[in-house]
Amino acid sequence: MTPGTDSGLLAPVWAGTGLGALVSDEAWLRAMLDVEAALARAQARLGVVPESAAAVIASVAREDGVDLLEVAERARGAANPVVVLVERFTAAVAARDPAAAEFVHRGGTSQDILDSAAMVLSGQVLAAVEADLRRVGRALARLAAEHRDTPMAGRTLTQHAVPITFGLKAAGWLQLTLDALERVSRVVLPAQLGGAAGTCASYAAYARLATGSPAGGGAELMRAFAEETGLAEPVVPWHALRTPIADLGSVCAFVAAALGKFGADVQIMSRTEIGEVTEPAADGRGVSSAMPQKRNPVLATLLVSAARQAPAYASILVQSLVSEDERSAGGWHAEWQPLRESLRLTAGAARTAAELAEGLTADPVRLRENLGLTGGSIVSERLNAELAGALGKANAKKLLAGVARRAAEEGRPFAELLAAAPELAGGLAGRVDVAELLDPERYLGASGELTGRVLARAAAVLGTYARVTVFSRP
Amino acid sequence: MTPGTDSGLLAPVWAGTGLGALVSDEAWLRAMLDVEAALARAQARLGVVPESAAAVIASVAREDGVDLLEVAERARGAANPVVVLVERFTAAVAARDPAAAEFVHRGGTSQDILDSAAMVLSGQVLAAVEADLRRVGRALARLAAEHRDTPMAGRTLTQHAVPITFGLKAAGWLQLTLDALERVSRVVLPAQLGGAAGTCASYAAYARLATGSPAGGGAELMRAFAEETGLAEPVVPWHALRTPIADLGSVCAFVAAALGKFGADVQIMSRTEIGEVTEPAADGRGVSSAMPQKRNPVLATLLVSAARQAPAYASILVQSLVSEDERSAGGWHAEWQPLRESLRLTAGAARTAAELAEGLTADPVRLRENLGLTGGSIVSERLNAELAGALGKANAKKLLAGVARRAAEEGRPFAELLAAAPELAGGLAGRVDVAELLDPERYLGASGELTGRVLARAAAVLGTYARVTVFSRP
Amino acid sequence: MTPGTDSGLLAPVWAGTGLGALVSDEAWLRAMLDVEAALARAQARLGVVPESAAAVIASVAREDGVDLLEVAERARGAANPVVVLVERFTAAVAARDPAAAEFVHRGGTSQDILDSAAMVLSGQVLAAVEADLRRVGRALARLAAEHRDTPMAGRTLTQHAVPITFGLKAAGWLQLTLDALERVSRVVLPAQLGGAAGTCASYAAYARLATGSPAGGGAELMRAFAEETGLAEPVVPWHALRTPIADLGSVCAFVAAALGKFGADVQIMSRTEIGEVTEPAADGRGVSSAMPQKRNPVLATLLVSAARQAPAYASILVQSLVSEDERSAGGWHAEWQPLRESLRLTAGAARTAAELAEGLTADPVRLRENLGLTGGSIVSERLNAELAGALGKANAKKLLAGVARRAAEEGRPFAELLAAAPELAGGLAGRVDVAELLDPERYLGASGELTGRVLARAAAVLGTYARVTVFSRP
Amino acid sequence: MTPGTDSGLLAPVWAGTGLGALVSDEAWLRAMLDVEAALARAQARLGVVPESAAAVIASVAREDGVDLLEVAERARGAANPVVVLVERFTAAVAARDPAAAEFVHRGGTSQDILDSAAMVLSGQVLAAVEADLRRVGRALARLAAEHRDTPMAGRTLTQHAVPITFGLKAAGWLQLTLDALERVSRVVLPAQLGGAAGTCASYAAYARLATGSPAGGGAELMRAFAEETGLAEPVVPWHALRTPIADLGSVCAFVAAALGKFGADVQIMSRTEIGEVTEPAADGRGVSSAMPQKRNPVLATLLVSAARQAPAYASILVQSLVSEDERSAGGWHAEWQPLRESLRLTAGAARTAAELAEGLTADPVRLRENLGLTGGSIVSERLNAELAGALGKANAKKLLAGVARRAAEEGRPFAELLAAAPELAGGLAGRVDVAELLDPERYLGASGELTGRVLARAAAVLGTYARVTVFSRP
Repeated sequence: MTPGTDSGLLAPVWAGTGLGALVSDEAWLRAMLDVEAALARAQARLGVVPESAAAVIASVAREDGVDLLEVAERARGAANPVVVLVERFTAAVAARDPAAAEFVHRGGTSQDILDSAAMVLSGQVLAAVEADLRRVGRALARLAAEHRDTPMAGRTLTQHAVPITFGLKAAGWLQLTLDALERVSRVVLPAQLGGAAGTCASYAAYARLATGSPAGGGAELMRAFAEETGLAEPVVPWHALRTPIADLGSVCAFVAAALGKFGADVQIMSRTEIGEVTEPAADGRGVSSAMPQKRNPVLATLLVSAARQAPAYASILVQSLVSEDERSAGGWHAEWQPLRESLRLTAGAARTAAELAEGLTADPVRLRENLGLTGGSIVSERLNAELAGALGKANAKKLLAGVARRAAEEGRPFAELLAAAPELAGGLAGRVDVAELLDPERYLGASGELTGRVLARAAAVLGTYARVTVFSRP
Repeated sequence: MTPGTDSGLLAPVWAGTGLGALVSDEAWLRAMLDVEAALARAQARLGVVPESAAAVIASVAREDGVDLLEVAERARGAANPVVVLVERFTAAVAARDPAAAEFVHRGGTSQDILDSAAMVLSGQVLAAVEADLRRVGRALARLAAEHRDTPMAGRTLTQHAVPITFGLKAAGWLQLTLDALERVSRVVLPAQLGGAAGTCASYAAYARLATGSPAGGGAELMRAFAEETGLAEPVVPWHALRTPIADLGSVCAFVAAALGKFGADVQIMSRTEIGEVTEPAADGRGVSSAMPQKRNPVLATLLVSAARQAPAYASILVQSLVSEDERSAGGWHAEWQPLRESLRLTAGAARTAAELAEGLTADPVRLRENLGLTGGSIVSERLNAELAGALGKANAKKLLAGVARRAAEEGRPFAELLAAAPELAGGLAGRVDVAELLDPERYLGASGELTGRVLARAAAVLGTYARVTVFSRP
Repeated sequence: MTPGTDSGLLAPVWAGTGLGALVSDEAWLRAMLDVEAALARAQARLGVVPESAAAVIASVAREDGVDLLEVAERARGAANPVVVLVERFTAAVAARDPAAAEFVHRGGTSQDILDSAAMVLSGQVLAAVEADLRRVGRALARLAAEHRDTPMAGRTLTQHAVPITFGLKAAGWLQLTLDALERVSRVVLPAQLGGAAGTCASYAAYARLATGSPAGGGAELMRAFAEETGLAEPVVPWHALRTPIADLGSVCAFVAAALGKFGADVQIMSRTEIGEVTEPAADGRGVSSAMPQKRNPVLATLLVSAARQAPAYASILVQSLVSEDERSAGGWHAEWQPLRESLRLTAGAARTAAELAEGLTADPVRLRENLGLTGGSIVSERLNAELAGALGKANAKKLLAGVARRAAEEGRPFAELLAAAPELAGGLAGRVDVAELLDPERYLGASGELTGRVLARAAAVLGTYARVTVFSRP
Repeated sequence: MTPGTDSGLLAPVWAGTGLGALVSDEAWLRAMLDVEAALARAQARLGVVPESAAAVIASVAREDGVDLLEVAERARGAANPVVVLVERFTAAVAARDPAAAEFVHRGGTSQDILDSAAMVLSGQVLAAVEADLRRVGRALARLAAEHRDTPMAGRTLTQHAVPITFGLKAAGWLQLTLDALERVSRVVLPAQLGGAAGTCASYAAYARLATGSPAGGGAELMRAFAEETGLAEPVVPWHALRTPIADLGSVCAFVAAALGKFGADVQIMSRTEIGEVTEPAADGRGVSSAMPQKRNPVLATLLVSAARQAPAYASILVQSLVSEDERSAGGWHAEWQPLRESLRLTAGAARTAAELAEGLTADPVRLRENLGLTGGSIVSERLNAELAGALGKANAKKLLAGVARRAAEEGRPFAELLAAAPELAGGLAGRVDVAELLDPERYLGASGELTGRVLARAAAVLGTYARVTVFSRP
């Protein structure tokens, strides 16, 4: 029977973006070979391996001549794919140069290879995520700036609350995007090099055999190896200290969930009854197999689908810190697949969010219509404040709640009922301009100022976003 | 860039077992085509689709002529792969018989196809899981029966507690296996057929067009379709009622975690210092890339790796019950990948457990040596009971705790120190046979009886397991 | 510093329902004392403990004289509360009758007491959950029956899809409620009795001391003890076989998440712009501290809050199956708090759902208004079927998608644009009654029939629900 | 029925430490009142509220006169406790000074109060966690320095791998502790102030009423309020942007899981058969209710119990980022209890780890005995390296694997069998000092150097730890 193959059929959030390839089995195999080459080169720099052997090893590594399926299927024997990979890779090197083959994986242990490869791939994915988050950030900053003064209904617990602006809403998505960007940029991806149990003893032994001193097999080798892989130099081997894995899990979950907020809001705002925003159109996007009229918010849907998964994967990856001994018997092995899923889900989500943010359009007419839907009761908080002085806080609230309830029950305009309220009949009426008080656009508070604060942060973080003005209309 | 491909390189618990293929993209595509064929056949039975068209559709479906990668990559447009699949499949049918192509996916909606296909595949996986759990059960029953009277150290909170038997230990693993088997057999896998929003309106419309009556498009069609797919007939379409998904998640997590207990115990018992059990040997199994002496308990390790993942996947799948509207915008889409992972992890774990259970050997010598390691203090609970009568419960406990502490601190035999205790000097000494009391094999309690109870349950559940005797030695 | 106290301030889903008290520390302490009493009584039945001592023990247990805070704070010493509880309880019995005190916790181990107490409490919570789910079921059945023919917009991926009925929607919630009820009723709650490592050796030792035979300390005692506690008789002690804990976690998660679907739908349907359903009014319900007009769907909100938590707790509880040795050093201890949370969240959710279901009202006017919002394009699936015959499937879909797009873009009625479509100008127009085709109420498919199927199941499951008619209008 | 009360009976990891009180309902209530006082003071600074009213409000807030149980039970009405709290607090203020009561919660919304209170409490917990992590760090640094050259068996996949030092092991725990410390110190805890929907409109309205300008109700008020609460100033209200909650969840999970590694290793090393380390003794610690000889590693057990829970809570908290609208209907409410659990679990774990680290003792005799247990095969990796030159890599490995297997099977010393190997008979024997090669203490690699690197980091991070020497013995 052929092996199980997952090419993304069940994961449209990343399938079709090309990003899944960054963590495919092929990519993983390639990264492990690259790491073997980096090890040989690092050892060559320190005189532990002949330069010529390192060159042959690196050259064969680049050829990807190892059979992926064989490695995958035989990985079961050692509970990890590296043992068979090394066997097959050594054979490939031997076919080219038997002497060089003696220097393959010299002093190496499976975990050094697999962990370092995981970091290399994670770095590539995070770079893609970061680039896409910058796209999201720039697009949302434009949207926030453009709509800073576009009023709309603020909603809490699904009900109209008080007016906000669409700019402030977009600024909120932007703020989360910047938070995500910050957390992505903070992740440290160290090389892993420690030998069988983290003492580097095998590397030191080979160093001593080659150079007479173990020096080329300890911290010096860690540094050289880190440089060759492009990874950070670790303080100490982290074979059983899974900080990088836990961090990757948490950061991926953060990014996916933060973008999930964007998706969730877009879904609500594009509901048939609400219709305030529209996803960018594209051929075949949002179609249904059965309903010709459909234009589904599929990008937002994909964002939500990622957000519902990533936090659970993170719970596995964070728990990998509970890794007994010098190599966990199961904890380590439980990391790989959730790490891959986390990375590709997050990469797909960031790319999807970029497409969504860059093409999202808001409909000012619908925004305004919805804002007026409750006939003024959306500013009852404001009335409460204004009337509290005259009526007392409790009485004002009671009056307004009563009017709102009657308006809902009788289907009459809130403003009309309010104007007719006997409590407002006295001297009060003259002092209060009800029409002005009921205008939602006069109750936007600090929306503009707050939007400006996020735009200023975006300008600082994104660097390239210009022409932000942090002043709002008076 | 090519798509991300996962062939199991990072999942040795199922890679190499062949079971991953049961839920590969290829299998999923095939199942979706099979479901399209079943729909056409069911409609043909009810006169809604011409028999000839159904035959062509079924025939083309069997040919697997749809390009997987194209479907996967274009799935992004509709946020699910079915829209493109139907388009390509319709074209393939049209190439054979344009008239038949009009009847492809007639009245169908994406979710009917994908959900039903998921159930078909889940059924195939559960069948494999069940068969493997039966193997596990039979092997563990043999082990429990064989070692019913083999004493060993019971351990609680990592410390020797009181004696148990290895038979009782194996019976515990067996009990969990039977629990798992029961839960697997209880899962109901219904066909999904409801049309765009669960009313079957489109099916009914086509039925009316073809037969003049909508009857062939409602419950009758659900029944026929269920029969054609081999799935259970649903009470009602479950497009937004995700009971089967939640159940699959919970059951897979149960199986994987239950087998994880088996794995965790084998890991402890095979620790270098403990050495009580050995995994079955196989070429290349348990080897290390660096340490020639290594014989790692890899099967147990693979079991633990699955157990650390599956419960988190289940948390996603159970949460899919929170599925708004007539089709969730993200909840549905978040199910697919965790469901596949759950299924193949569980299938791999069950197969791995079967290999482990069938080949596990216990070393009675080491079991006995470890039992004697504490020089008798492992039965201090018993002494406590025996001495409580003479000394009172509190005094007895104090005496024994003191003796145990001194034995540990001074490195002297517990029995010797106990015999010298002044509290036992009086008339007590004569009435108590300390040597008999200190014999761990005389303090096995109901181990045999309890082992027998589990074996009796196993005989009932597994059917084929014979020659169970439920009597223990006197 | 005083201990941390959680009286429900942060958990409104159960605070104020009285159900939290079922699993309070006080309840847990009481249950553990009850279990101690049950153990003594069971041993008395078998002649292992004097009847008089058992009576004293039971009497003192009923007095709840043990200081909860002392037990909680000193629990740290043994990593569980039972050791101190037994010490304090023994002292309380001794104060009454020193002879009886010797028989307290005779042969017992901490886990037998704590696990059995957990099962007793779980049983009480599940009984409450079941009763509330029955209330939910009856109320939803009424709603489904009453609104079987009330049409409304079906929604998929947030967009209007095709018409459904509110009865079918309620029937869906009902179906999940019945699924939940079934799963609750299937949970087996066994007594736990095994002694220090599950062999019952200590019980057998005391039995032999008292009666000369160990028989009263094995399976016979398990049975008597189960009867005294009202729990199921276990096949074998489950101190390290955590099936009941895993099952409770899964079932609680299922119930909470299933009710979360109900909550999520009610939230959407009661959105300001949608306004189709209203939560039952009650003094102070749904109010805001700041906005007088607010009437928030708080019951639905509480349901969703529970659904977002319970699946994660279940992931901990299922993972407790991975419980090494004869008692896990951490796995067992990690169960208690998530189990309590799961139970009280679920109990609160079921009670909340009962309140919601019993008082939920639907507004047929708004349901109908929303259904008509898209001017007919909600039945474009139907048009597709009808026109496919004349135009071919692909052409029909293309025509309808185009009309729907123009209607949305130009703000003109779908029906009007469709009528003007040149494709329908020919002989087709005469043969198709567009007005009839565009009537959403004529495109309800099998809604009535399907609603009836769920009502029939409800009648069978709930027993008491009568007057269900499973026929729909013709 | 009385409310459910949780005083820690089921959570020994924090019960008895006093730390649970930091997030008790009482603490939460107090923090909310403190936040109300801070709001009034901040508004007074800006002239929005009279100084005298703010003084009265602050004074009444300090008196904790609000009935906790009433607030908890009535919280159900609004789905949060603040509405009732404000009502009762306003009444309490009114009883003192009716005029001041008008200024309570002026412009406030429930979420501003609850979120800010949550941050205040989180800050107090993190301070305790940080202090305890510093204790852990200092103690582990001492242990690592002291045992830098104490050899012991390194273990991978449960089997002896190669020698390490206990110092390096402790340095690994230390490294994770420093990672945890870094992550704790990085958490930003911002005040939350945004009014009903994050625009600050109500605050601005009251500011305008009082001062004629809205300025005192926007960013200026955010700053003043942040200062009064001691929290960070937010860029923008985060009512629906749940970064701080997600971060707290991730960091708590990181800390708990990182300490779980420490606990898991201590558990293994203190197993009866291994006996390398001992937890600090204390009266009543580690005792069993039934087994007098028991001395369970309870501190390690409590650490593991926390590590098994916290990552799942984090999955809820991170998912709270998916928070629709301007206030989530359920997402927000699902945060509170998991946040409390995360905080107190983590605080308890850090305190427990401090006790464990400060009192942990290692037994050099047992460490050495275990190291020698395999009669030299623990250095077969080294032999492999040394013999590879003479025999070739593959042959060397084959020879050593064979000898190790025979040693295990025949129960004979590895060294003896190796010496007798014909492959070593030739000239090789003379050139290789087998005894030296087999000495585990000569194969410690860079253990000392690596330990020193972590100690250097600890010195930098912990500041106070002195006398670290980073040189190892030659």
